[in-house]
Amino acid sequence: MRTLRTIAEMQLAAESERGAGRRLAVVPTMGALHRGHVSLIERARTAADVVVTTIFVNPAQFGPNEDLTRYPRPFDSDVAVAGAAGSDIVFAPSPEEIYPEGFQTFVVNERAASGFEGAERPGHFRGVATIVAKLFLATKPHLAVFGQKDAQQVAVVKALIRDLNMDIELDVAPIVREPDGLALSSRNAYLSADERARSVVLYKALTDAQRRAAAGERSATAIRRAMYGILKEGRPDRIDYAAVVDPGSFVELEDVPLTGALAILAVRFGSTRLLDNMYLEQRKSEA
Amino acid sequence: MRTLRTIAEMQLAAESERGAGRRLAVVPTMGALHRGHVSLIERARTAADVVVTTIFVNPAQFGPNEDLTRYPRPFDSDVAVAGAAGSDIVFAPSPEEIYPEGFQTFVVNERAASGFEGAERPGHFRGVATIVAKLFLATKPHLAVFGQKDAQQVAVVKALIRDLNMDIELDVAPIVREPDGLALSSRNAYLSADERARSVVLYKALTDAQRRAAAGERSATAIRRAMYGILKEGRPDRIDYAAVVDPGSFVELEDVPLTGALAILAVRFGSTRLLDNMYLEQRKSEA
Repeated sequence: MRTLRTIAEMQLAAESERGAGRRLAVVPTMGALHRGHVSLIERARTAADVVVTTIFVNPAQFGPNEDLTRYPRPFDSDVAVAGAAGSDIVFAPSPEEIYPEGFQTFVVNERAASGFEGAERPGHFRGVATIVAKLFLATKPHLAVFGQKDAQQVAVVKALIRDLNMDIELDVAPIVREPDGLALSSRNAYLSADERARSVVLYKALTDAQRRAAAGERSATAIRRAMYGILKEGRPDRIDYAAVVDPGSFVELEDVPLTGALAILAVRFGSTRLLDNMYLEQRKSEA
Repeated sequence: MRTLRTIAEMQLAAESERGAGRRLAVVPTMGALHRGHVSLIERARTAADVVVTTIFVNPAQFGPNEDLTRYPRPFDSDVAVAGAAGSDIVFAPSPEEIYPEGFQTFVVNERAASGFEGAERPGHFRGVATIVAKLFLATKPHLAVFGQKDAQQVAVVKALIRDLNMDIELDVAPIVREPDGLALSSRNAYLSADERARSVVLYKALTDAQRRAAAGERSATAIRRAMYGILKEGRPDRIDYAAVVDPGSFVELEDVPLTGALAILAVRFGSTRLLDNMYLEQRKSEA
């Protein structure tokens, strides 16, 4: 496995692989790789000849009071994990390589990025859309694998690929969870033992929403209210939101459709923000 | 020569040419091709195996009170001109192909696009950067040829290519002028005979600025004042601006450097806006 540091090296490698007729997949990450990331890399491995994992903690998607400096960066073990999961290349540029002096061009989403994470974290999705566009253009993949865990990011990336004519297939991998249901996240490491125990309410709230929808509940307000009730049992420091949205536009729904509604939530324990989401269906799926 | 209408067809053609090891050049235009465009296509022809001319009147770069509807669209003769100049492919998508229902992702420049055309035409460079990114991603070129005529657009595109990691070489072709010095532009067709005669002051103002700089004038204010004086002799309906700027950042200069300053101006005759620009050097170039 190779670790590449510059955009030029990465593009040269990608062009060479593409020229040889090989199919490239990219898995963009901020490092601190856990089993969720491993599942993305493994999916990429089955679908492509060459798997590129990018590791870049993107300053542009962190707000001024967020956890940029304390975000975990276990680089050597990340490289080992990426390799073991099937990566051929780790692309790990420096912040200066990605945002050189005089950087002035950004990619913005004006719809799916507006609410929820976009409202809670001003500038976040501008940073996300910009780095994703840059990583796509640096790695030149046929396929990109993202996790469903960051559902609004998925909506923004899907729009980005379509709107900017990125010739890239998007594969969205299901959320990987701990045995008690907590969605895997690099930020889970911030939780105290007590917070970790209480954080199970996210999964409880979502599965309750799923059960209600499957039982025929059509009112998104009723489902949202029930989610808030369950979340509060975990005594979180703040519930940023709990809602039922259209997964493409991230517009909040009033009525839960037969299929394709998404329950989303963001909750704080101490200074740690946890996100999670789950699809709702009026009829319980067989899976 | 082939005319392609869809992004998918264009990408397929580009991938096929790239896969065969051929070098692609793109010349983005809004049609209404004149000798200036021909010079761009001819440059592309000498530098690439496959030349793609794009013809798309981009609604997103016109303001609400601008000339979108009356902008000339002589499509059949444009295709003939592009072919005669050496194009292999004309890529001419419809507005619906480029901006489908639900379009929501834009590319924005936050520095070079701020002043001058950016200030006179709010949203213009957002439209330019977005369509240029889209056309680059649709046509997948190794080389892109733009005209120096739209100097601020060149600065925005140069930043776009660098900032978003577009693996594209940029070639900027010199301005093509009428015998009396008027820069070729599709909008010159709007000028009445009287306006056309008076419009020669743009070239006069710029060559005067060049002469003053070459003679040692270091004050941009003095040069600007002289440009305004000459422009007024043409009794324009409005002088939007005349200035000396850094050609990369489009920040106005106070002192004219030894090399690399750009005199720019925008002037209206009736409802027709004319742009022009010229490099200034303290020592007259040999060319």
